[in-house]
This record gives sequence, structure tokens and C-alpha cells, in this order.
Amino acid sequence: MSTSDDDVLEALRSTFSPHTLTTDPAELDAHAVDKGPLEHWQVHVPRAVVFAESVEDVQTLVRLSAEHRFPLVTRGAGTSVSGGANSTEGSVVLSLTRMNQILAMRPEDEVAVVEPGVINADLNAAAAEHGLMYAPDPASYRISTIGGNVATNAGGLRCAKYGVTRDSVLALDVVLADGTLIHTGQATFKGVAGYDLTSLFVGSEGTLGIVVGVTVRLRHLSRHTETIAAFFDELTTAAQGVLEIGKARVQPAITELLDRNTMVALDQAQGSDLAGRGNTLLLIQTDGHGAAIEAEIIREVLRGLGATVSDPGSAESERLIELRRHARGDGIATEVRVGEDVAVPRSKLVDYIRAIEDLAEEHQVQLKVVAHAGDGNLHPTFSVPSSELSPESGPETSPDDDAGSPALPEAAPVTLDAAEGDLPASAMSRLHAALDGSVRLALEMGGTITGEHGIGTYKLRWLDWEQSAEVIALQRRIKDVFDPEYRLNPGRAIL
Amino acid sequence: MSTSDDDVLEALRSTFSPHTLTTDPAELDAHAVDKGPLEHWQVHVPRAVVFAESVEDVQTLVRLSAEHRFPLVTRGAGTSVSGGANSTEGSVVLSLTRMNQILAMRPEDEVAVVEPGVINADLNAAAAEHGLMYAPDPASYRISTIGGNVATNAGGLRCAKYGVTRDSVLALDVVLADGTLIHTGQATFKGVAGYDLTSLFVGSEGTLGIVVGVTVRLRHLSRHTETIAAFFDELTTAAQGVLEIGKARVQPAITELLDRNTMVALDQAQGSDLAGRGNTLLLIQTDGHGAAIEAEIIREVLRGLGATVSDPGSAESERLIELRRHARGDGIATEVRVGEDVAVPRSKLVDYIRAIEDLAEEHQVQLKVVAHAGDGNLHPTFSVPSSELSPESGPETSPDDDAGSPALPEAAPVTLDAAEGDLPASAMSRLHAALDGSVRLALEMGGTITGEHGIGTYKLRWLDWEQSAEVIALQRRIKDVFDPEYRLNPGRAIL
Repeated sequence: MSTSDDDVLEALRSTFSPHTLTTDPAELDAHAVDKGPLEHWQVHVPRAVVFAESVEDVQTLVRLSAEHRFPLVTRGAGTSVSGGANSTEGSVVLSLTRMNQILAMRPEDEVAVVEPGVINADLNAAAAEHGLMYAPDPASYRISTIGGNVATNAGGLRCAKYGVTRDSVLALDVVLADGTLIHTGQATFKGVAGYDLTSLFVGSEGTLGIVVGVTVRLRHLSRHTETIAAFFDELTTAAQGVLEIGKARVQPAITELLDRNTMVALDQAQGSDLAGRGNTLLLIQTDGHGAAIEAEIIREVLRGLGATVSDPGSAESERLIELRRHARGDGIATEVRVGEDVAVPRSKLVDYIRAIEDLAEEHQVQLKVVAHAGDGNLHPTFSVPSSELSPESGPETSPDDDAGSPALPEAAPVTLDAAEGDLPASAMSRLHAALDGSVRLALEMGGTITGEHGIGTYKLRWLDWEQSAEVIALQRRIKDVFDPEYRLNPGRAIL
Repeated sequence: MSTSDDDVLEALRSTFSPHTLTTDPAELDAHAVDKGPLEHWQVHVPRAVVFAESVEDVQTLVRLSAEHRFPLVTRGAGTSVSGGANSTEGSVVLSLTRMNQILAMRPEDEVAVVEPGVINADLNAAAAEHGLMYAPDPASYRISTIGGNVATNAGGLRCAKYGVTRDSVLALDVVLADGTLIHTGQATFKGVAGYDLTSLFVGSEGTLGIVVGVTVRLRHLSRHTETIAAFFDELTTAAQGVLEIGKARVQPAITELLDRNTMVALDQAQGSDLAGRGNTLLLIQTDGHGAAIEAEIIREVLRGLGATVSDPGSAESERLIELRRHARGDGIATEVRVGEDVAVPRSKLVDYIRAIEDLAEEHQVQLKVVAHAGDGNLHPTFSVPSSELSPESGPETSPDDDAGSPALPEAAPVTLDAAEGDLPASAMSRLHAALDGSVRLALEMGGTITGEHGIGTYKLRWLDWEQSAEVIALQRRIKDVFDPEYRLNPGRAIL
């Protein structure tokens, strides 16, 4: 399909300065992969990387890609844990990390306009100066970009109360596959003129156009938060606690559930003794002017269920929630892990966790579970001991929601196949069987294969378990409208 | 394009029973129009009305429409104030009012599944039994359907805090133009598999498919609300109050602004003396467990600005907000009114209201303004005395957000042209000039031509003021994907 490599490089070099364009092998390698699990044959080193510094740079590159017919893989910080930012064969990577300016901060309107390369945490820091926050808080928020968050419709811990990325995006500037710049949406909280193109671009993983500007809604940064740690003997009771909080009509900002194995892993990493205090931990945070009242209601509800509940102002609770938010807490070099990102209706949390516990036992793999329990979004992590695999296999990345934390060393792509080729195939196939089974179970319980990480390339194999042939066909026809030559981030998000 | 009338009717009659199909002239007339302003030449009596009772009925009718090539206008309660449910030439009207069952109420998941003909208020009543609510609350909520709300992405009073319809719709069942039934989205709060087709259908005014099932997210029904009425001498100060409440980091559930002329109209209708107490009224409601704390902060903030603020528990405030919510309060038979639905960034509220006051004076028309001030969504109503028009002109409907209130008599379509043809053209052209100017001004201030009512047929003439040629073209190409023959609600929502 594409012009020869030489022609493409020549066209790029005659257009972009060496400051903007690189073919340095180390840079190419660094831009070939993201933080998703990738089999080695899926790694494609790009032809070049262009660090766009303006909308015009993006338009110019897109037009070159149209002329010379090479695929463009657009990328922010590369923190996708689903392979949404991996390079594809013959592609040029478009990095938007240099387009990192907050173009407007309008505190009275509770709106900001940013370039796509702005780091989520930087936007939050700027908003905080005005008593505001940008609500979507993926675990990668200290390093991931708003553009990447938009591409995946990123979630986080606060979604049950404040919504996902889509709920905070009001308008977009998008460069289409032919280089045209369009503006969608409006700068106001409400607007219903025509089709909701903004929402169509959000979560489309860069396959419909390149987002070069984002108008976001900001929300009030709470002056008050209260954090509660509640230890339960039984998972069932903890999940019941989540539902009882709902029945008390309290909407916490954060409701995290950690299972026993997660606590054990945290204890190992932190020297704590969480697992000695219970088998399931709920970490809950309330915010807003009613935070203290809501926290008191929650404490009463959970004590009523027999939980050991932290006192008001508990410093440990604060520390635990930060640990949950910022750290994987499980930097264990002796296992190969693959995490998941399913969501199920909240009432199915216990059934789901019990079922995947059975699955783990059946396939003889280890299982840890954390969940954004308020919205039924679970991150089970399945693992096998590294000792069962190649001795040279190092620690593997886990596509859980915490991948990309800056506390972590830069991760190499998971080369599952390589491992598989080296030593007991049975370990890897057990891991795969458990993963497949866990995804199937989520669907059977009325859930989804991905709550917040996106399809990327990694989850394509499960997509037609969730979507009908008709929906798949419709999405292809929409892709055809926007990018009939499949030049923009080909091979991800849709089948 | 279409088969002859006889063939169409024969096909319909051989398919649907007389219980389901009607060609009764009174029914046809009743289904020709909605509550939007319509010029008389725009009224098209449909060929027939089909009252679908099942998804299969809808599919059967859609397939007949494909075979015989007649347009289908899908309709719920017909409360559109933008002409989104008007019949078009040669069309068959598909009424979904009989598909009015709540199919599932899952309080633990905070989710319900409904047929499209369920009345918004009925869903809320059913949810309230479980301490839950369906948040989107268009003023028509006592008579409008969830399907219609979805078609227009309806707003309401609570949107700044709880979002618009799109934010409460998790999944849809949709019959496509060829009769295929698809399911989009997921039953969980989060889900990012593939493109966001759900959001694409929401607000598409029935032009992309026929929504036959809606999975909605419910939220906690607050046990506590506090309502505040604050009278200001100056509009400027009232608008400043809205911003100061934001700076105090309080998110009220409701923030309504009423201008002096609205108060005068309310006084005339209710025998009250609001206008004697100030020139601008803010009606604010807080909810949730922190409602009392938030209300106290608001009262302090507004008193600090010199407002006369109601005391806690004020019965009058409650009454006023119900009045604002349920009643037009301005059933004045002596004027011809046309309302608007623009939105501007919140910080522009004063500038916008001042500018349209000038516009009203310039064009010698009357102006009243109410605004959902928390989200910058304004409903200015421009009017001229009926005495300037034909003596046989009765009271006209106003496309403000309150049209469709059951307190009103069933409204005849506004026949602006007829009026225009009859008597002083200058009055109608002044009205039109003021309307056009008000829409232009909203766009100039960074706003939108429609905050929550939709484009329908009425606002098509302004759509290319807001949308670029490229966006218009993209939308057409999306329409082509879903309905290349333009059989579904043709001639609305997009250009």
C-alpha cells in the first residue's frame, strides 16, 4: 500500500526539521510499543517519529501520509495498557507530547482548553489554583496525556461520582484523515446541535481523527475529603457494603475493593499487616461539603455489617488510598502477570469474584483482584510463577489500571510468545485460559470486556464476544467515513 | 420517491390490525405536528399512524418503509419544541407511546431498562420506590417519553450537577433503517469497547435509527433538599452570585435565574409581588447529605452581594421553584411569543442578557429571560402584542423549555406565516430579527444555538451559523451510513 521507505523518509525529511523528525533507532524503539502486553511478532518499529509542535505540523504530516499512503500512529505518553499506542507495520509515529500547553483556563466558566499533550496531573495542578479539578483520574494521571485519555475515554477511581473522560469533554479540535481541521461540540455544559461527534471521537483510539485540542469541563476541587478503610472477614459482606452505601443514598467519590491476595502483596511490598486484619478491604473516600456527614453514614453502615472501620481522620486510610492510587504495590519479580479490566453490574461483584477464584483454581494460576467497586469495574490480575517460565524472563508488565505509574521502571513489552516458546507452554496456556474465561464470565453476567482501558490491539480478540456482527459492520462503515484508507491508527479499537 | 399512497396504505393494512394502524383524520392531524413553531406550509398530514406495541412491530414497519420507500417519522409524546416530531411529506408516523413498559428495575445496580414510550415521570416514580431517580428533568417530564428525551438529548434544571440525558443513558436497543435490531453500549457505568454508538444515537432526533429500548443509569434520590430564593436589585449582581457560588465550590442541583419581566409575568398570573422585591431572582436548590451546609454557604455568599435571601425552610422558595419547574406562569393570550434555547459560557450570562435587552429595544419587541444559570442555558422569550397581528390569531406556543407542561391547553402549531400574511408584517419581521440576532449573539459569545431543545426542523436555519461546512458534510456521511435513503425522520437534526 505505502510508498517505499526511502520515498517516505525523503518526503518527511524535506518537510520537517531534524528537531521535529527523528529516525534515531533508540527513539524508534521507544515509540514502537506502549505499556500493553504485546507478543513479540506484534512489535513493529516505526519508520520515523514526528514530534508535532502545532496543529499545522499535524495537518502537514497527515497530508503527507495521504500522499505517500503510510499509516500514522498517534501517541501521547504511550501509557496505553491495551496496545492502543503500539506502532504498526510501515507506520510513522506522530507524537503529540510537545503540544502540551494549556491554551485557556476559564475558572468562572469551569472550562479549560488544552493541547492534547498536556499531562493530566498538570491540568489538575493548574485547575487547583482556581479551586477546580479535572475529574477523570486514570492511575496513570501523573504521566498520561489528556489526548491519550480522550483517545481511550479513560476512567479512574472517581468515575461513579464524576463520570468518565467523555463526561468531561465538551468540545474537540480534530484533524481528519485528509488534513482538514474541524471543531466539534461547544464550550458550554449543554449543547445539542447535530450529531454528537465529540463523543464519537472520544474513545475511538485515534482511528477517526487526530485530536489536537480539547475543551474540558472542570469541577470543584473539594475542600473536604474523608477516607475510610473497612476490613471485612468475608468478600460477600464487603460487596454487600458497597450496595448498602448505595441504599443509604451516599455517592462516595471513591470506592475501592481489594481482595486478600492484593493485601498480601501490599504487605509484602510495604511491610504492613493488612491481611492480618481481614480478608477484604474497602477503601472509600467522600468529598464535597457533606463529606463528613456521608463518611459517618458509611461508617455506621459498614460497622453494622461487622466490618472493622477506621476512625475519622485516620491517617492510615489516607495512606492506603494513596497507595492504591499511585502504586502497584506488587512489584514482584517472580511472577508473570496479566491483568484485566472487565466491568459487571455492581450487584454481580461477589458472583464475579467467586467465579474467577474458581477459574484461577481450575487453571492453577494465582489471582489478585482490585475493583472500582462503585461502578463494578474490576482489575483481576492473573499470574504464574516466573519459575515456570524461562529463567531470563524478567518481571512482566501487567495491563492493570496502574501500569504507567511513574513509580515503576519503564516497562518492556510483555513478550508472552517468547516466554511461551521458551519453557512450559502449559503455564502460559493456563494463564490465557484463565484470562479468556474471566472475560467470558464478565459478559455472561451482563458486563463488558473493557471498563476503561480500551480495546487497543490486545483486546481485539474478545471484541466479537461482546459486539454483534451488525455492530462491528456499522463501526467499520463509520471508520470508512472518516478514514477509508485505514491510515489512522489502523488495527485497533474496532474489528 | 415513494410508492403511491394506495399501495402504501394497502401494505400497511394488510400488515397491521386496525387496533395498531389508524388513518382517522383526527388522529392524522394530531400526529402531524408537535409543540414546535411551525409555519403553515410546513404542516404535512401523515398517511397513517402506526402505534407499535413491540420491537417486532417497529421492525415490520421499518421493512415496509424500505420496501415501499415511504418516510417514517418516529414520535413519542410529541412534546418537541423544535419541530423534531413533526410529520413530513408522504410520511407514516410511528408512535411509540404504547411501548411504555419498564422492563427492568435493578436498584442495586442503579440501572433500569425501559421501553421508549415510558413517561419520564413514571420512570421517576418507579425509581423513587427504591430511593432512586432518573436525573434528566426536562420541563415536559410529566408528559414526555424517555425515547423522546433520548432523541433530543433532553436537558432540564438539574443538568449542571447531574448531566444531560446522554450522561444517564448506558445502552440502547435500536432498529436500523433496514429493520435490523442492534444493541449498543453496556449495562455498566463504564464501558469502552469500540465506538460510542450509544452517544451517537442520543440526540440524533431519530434520524439514525429507532430507539426501542433504553438502559438508563439511576442516581440517588436525595433525602434532603434546601431551596433558596434570592432577590437582587441588579441582574449583574445575580449573575455574579452564580459565579461566587462556584467559587465557594458548591454545585447546586438547580440554579435558575429569572429576569424582571418574567417576575412581572408570574405576578400577573399568580397574584404575587415578586417584582416588588427585586429586579432579578435566583432560585437555587441544593441536595444530598450536605444540602443544608451548601445552602448556608450559598445564603452567606448571596447576602454578601446584597441580595434579599430567603430563610432556611422557606415554603415560598419551594413554591417558586415548583412554579418555575411546572408552569409557564405566563399564559398570556395577548401576545405572540417565540422562545429560544441558546447556551453561553456562564461568565457571559450578564453580557448576553444585556445584549439581547438591547436587541429587544432595537426591534421593539418584548423580552423575558429565564436561564438555567448554572450551565449558561438561557430561554429568552421574545414577543409582540397580538394586537399588532391578525385579530383571529390566538395565543401562540412558545418554544421555551416549558412547552408541553400539562398545565397548558394542547397547543396549536404556531402559524407564523399566516400571521405574517394577515397583518403588520413588521411585527413578525421584528420578532424574527430579534430571534436571529439573539442566536447570532450567543454564537459570538462562544455559545451554541441550542442547549437542550435540539435542532428539529425549526432551528435548521441557524445550524450552519454554528457548524462548519466540513462538520455538516461529515454528519451527512454518517447519516448515509445509517439511512442512505433518508427514510428515518428526514429533514431534521442535520443540514
